[in-house]
Amino acid sequence: MSDTPDSAVQTARTHAVRAYVEQHRAAFLDDLAAWLRIPSVSAQPGHAPDVRASAEWLAAKLTETGFPAVEVWETAGAPAVFAEWPSDDENAPTVLVYGHHDVQPAAREDGWHTDPFEPVVRDGRMYARGASDDKGQVFFHTLGVRAHLAATGRTTPAVHLKLLVEGEEESGSPHFRALVEQHADRLAADAVIVSDTGMWSETTPTVCTGMRGVADCEIELYGPDQDIHSGSFGGAVPNPATVAGRLVAALHDEDERVAIPGFYDGAAPLDDAERALIAELPFDESSWLATAKSHGVLGEAGYSTLERVWARPTAEVNGIGGGYQGPGGKTIVPASAQLKISFRLVAGQDPDKIELAVRDWLAARVPAGIRYEITFGAPTRPCLTPLDHPALRSVAKAMSLAFDGAKIRFTREGGSGPAADLQDVLHAPVLFLGISVPSDGWHAPNEKVELDLLLKGVEAAAHLWSELPTARF
Amino acid sequence: MSDTPDSAVQTARTHAVRAYVEQHRAAFLDDLAAWLRIPSVSAQPGHAPDVRASAEWLAAKLTETGFPAVEVWETAGAPAVFAEWPSDDENAPTVLVYGHHDVQPAAREDGWHTDPFEPVVRDGRMYARGASDDKGQVFFHTLGVRAHLAATGRTTPAVHLKLLVEGEEESGSPHFRALVEQHADRLAADAVIVSDTGMWSETTPTVCTGMRGVADCEIELYGPDQDIHSGSFGGAVPNPATVAGRLVAALHDEDERVAIPGFYDGAAPLDDAERALIAELPFDESSWLATAKSHGVLGEAGYSTLERVWARPTAEVNGIGGGYQGPGGKTIVPASAQLKISFRLVAGQDPDKIELAVRDWLAARVPAGIRYEITFGAPTRPCLTPLDHPALRSVAKAMSLAFDGAKIRFTREGGSGPAADLQDVLHAPVLFLGISVPSDGWHAPNEKVELDLLLKGVEAAAHLWSELPTARF
Repeated sequence: MSDTPDSAVQTARTHAVRAYVEQHRAAFLDDLAAWLRIPSVSAQPGHAPDVRASAEWLAAKLTETGFPAVEVWETAGAPAVFAEWPSDDENAPTVLVYGHHDVQPAAREDGWHTDPFEPVVRDGRMYARGASDDKGQVFFHTLGVRAHLAATGRTTPAVHLKLLVEGEEESGSPHFRALVEQHADRLAADAVIVSDTGMWSETTPTVCTGMRGVADCEIELYGPDQDIHSGSFGGAVPNPATVAGRLVAALHDEDERVAIPGFYDGAAPLDDAERALIAELPFDESSWLATAKSHGVLGEAGYSTLERVWARPTAEVNGIGGGYQGPGGKTIVPASAQLKISFRLVAGQDPDKIELAVRDWLAARVPAGIRYEITFGAPTRPCLTPLDHPALRSVAKAMSLAFDGAKIRFTREGGSGPAADLQDVLHAPVLFLGISVPSDGWHAPNEKVELDLLLKGVEAAAHLWSELPTARF
Repeated sequence: MSDTPDSAVQTARTHAVRAYVEQHRAAFLDDLAAWLRIPSVSAQPGHAPDVRASAEWLAAKLTETGFPAVEVWETAGAPAVFAEWPSDDENAPTVLVYGHHDVQPAAREDGWHTDPFEPVVRDGRMYARGASDDKGQVFFHTLGVRAHLAATGRTTPAVHLKLLVEGEEESGSPHFRALVEQHADRLAADAVIVSDTGMWSETTPTVCTGMRGVADCEIELYGPDQDIHSGSFGGAVPNPATVAGRLVAALHDEDERVAIPGFYDGAAPLDDAERALIAELPFDESSWLATAKSHGVLGEAGYSTLERVWARPTAEVNGIGGGYQGPGGKTIVPASAQLKISFRLVAGQDPDKIELAVRDWLAARVPAGIRYEITFGAPTRPCLTPLDHPALRSVAKAMSLAFDGAKIRFTREGGSGPAADLQDVLHAPVLFLGISVPSDGWHAPNEKVELDLLLKGVEAAAHLWSELPTARF
């Protein structure tokens, strides 16, 4: 591995990266637009051929970029794309980039100002489904590695570079873990770089250091064999809708802490250093609430809003139902009720133990006369980059170089992603390189990407392949 | 008023009533079957002409029975039938009989063994929609008054007899109170006899002494402006589905008492005498549970199951909904949730005060950031016949005469009915004369009436018109 270049070399390289990126900007954006025209909506079976076309388009583009090995990998669902570009430095670290080429559903009538699959550039932004989530952010790695080679004069990257771009992320990645397990040897890496997240804002470049995990369950509660008359029987038999409500109420204590015994076991506490870093961010409650489309904050006592959504585990009711929900009233004791609850998990929490804790909690709380069933979905584990991880410093350095020397701050994501499967199966740290901003409108109408930020993503990727070999991790 | 006849007169009269009823039994049942063939389903607009035909059929039959004044009364909905047969004893008490001529929906495919609107007699039972609820029980007053005249040798009843048979009971009697208020002068009575309830069982003849009232509300809870991502925002904003659950849990305390402050204000306590009467009934928990199609009992501490459903006020969740209720999971904080709650009320509770108490309770419990709306339906007041009311003794005596001198026990109904409007508007005590049994299957497929019991209802009505004038109430 090479040492960190001296300041003059660094400056020259930074200029060279930027010059190369500027030179190829137009073609890069034209290519991205071509990819965005393929409506690779994984959730809609009718778009399965488009998801495949998207994989094949990307594979061809990666070959054209120079990756010597490009493969379309089949899964039980939509295909993924794998590409590999070994370094001629045998001692170089191996890096696996993760992203996805499928997109959320989108239709003009949902409120799009233009066709979601006909990209339009307006005011320095490209509007299209997938522009930032995630095709744009996957795509910056194509020009990124070319700029890296151009600026360093290398013929191969300074890292053994691998890409895995899946096609089912927007459908919950149902086959991703199996794919990773199947190809664990090919995917082996010293670090995973996830390009499927974002930054704090256009003016506050940040690096994400973790995502929460998630475990979700559905609880069915059965009372009378059919809806019964609440006048004749109400007040004398257990009501499954009442039980559902009591379970919801029992999820939290008065401090809004999750009240399921054992829930917090092993959960990594927030240390003062990270709390200080979070406090550095220019958080404004009213604009956060506007983004959340909410009208008040409420959460675990003793933590700020950002700490609550990024670094604390939660229990959330996603759905509840039972009895009569039509217009007017109906005087019944309902036959059944259901609850859908998801738990966000932080580092140190084990979804399997959470499942057992929830099952025990439920068994202790459902009264006699009510039968229940509980089913859990496949969990996603949390992942967290330690703030002192050398590779994290490399990512921050690469971002800073792309952002003209700006101070890089750190965030987390409250959501969950399949990156944790890579962490678990490959036993590699996960890092995040993303340039999307909250206004990009992921999953919403008029999704866009800020073109200047997208090109800074290209630069950051180019720099990262030079920086990582110095990290000695 | 005449005094109670001596024993010999009574015995002769009892025989005469029975002989008259037996003599006319076949024609009576043929007539009832003809009425049951009219599908007077008030809840289904397509049956509106049938509801009208039912009213006209009944009016013609009451004229044929001998009522000198019979009128079809229009409402904003379905028509009611009013009939009046004054006594030639000017000092006779005035009695208003209440029933309804509309029926619940019924279709062969719901599980009926035969056409619900083609009555079939099998094993001493007549199967048809309305056989017991309520055409059969209204109809026993036709033969009943004729038997009364035949057995007493009178040409007019010993009471000023009025009948009001509404056509919207199975649709919640939306225009009934207005009808009663409009015709309050014509309906004025010393007592109201409701023939729309039942007895404990085939072998335990009983008289009902009250119905609970009901107040129901719908609560809408609004959180985020749309469903939001539970990973990005969950745990930091109030969740309306969670609030709905907490409201449900807060409805009751640990003793299953309603925990809304002021809820029990004024509620008539159960006295020892009535508890003793309830305890006399041959209650069997497992058969009660089978009727309730339930698998456990749960209710207010310190009361038996019958006390809970008959004589104690309750809060029941009739429906709850919010967020995602489809298959699988969806990691959202829902935009809204809703609750439907009904409160059963006992004598002494005022629905208007209950509404205020619920509104105060709600306002104190909904957290900042959640907007709510609450709407109440039109309440039904409770009604209760005091156990020492002289008219109640008359009803019990009439029933005992019909049931061969059997001891008559007392029940209540857990449900609610428009009879309370008669009590409120006419300021008259409400009494219940009904012969239906739990196995009759009200509102269910294969509704039936036990023919022997139905004819005992005829006898009881015949006796009641002789008994009531002696009651001096």
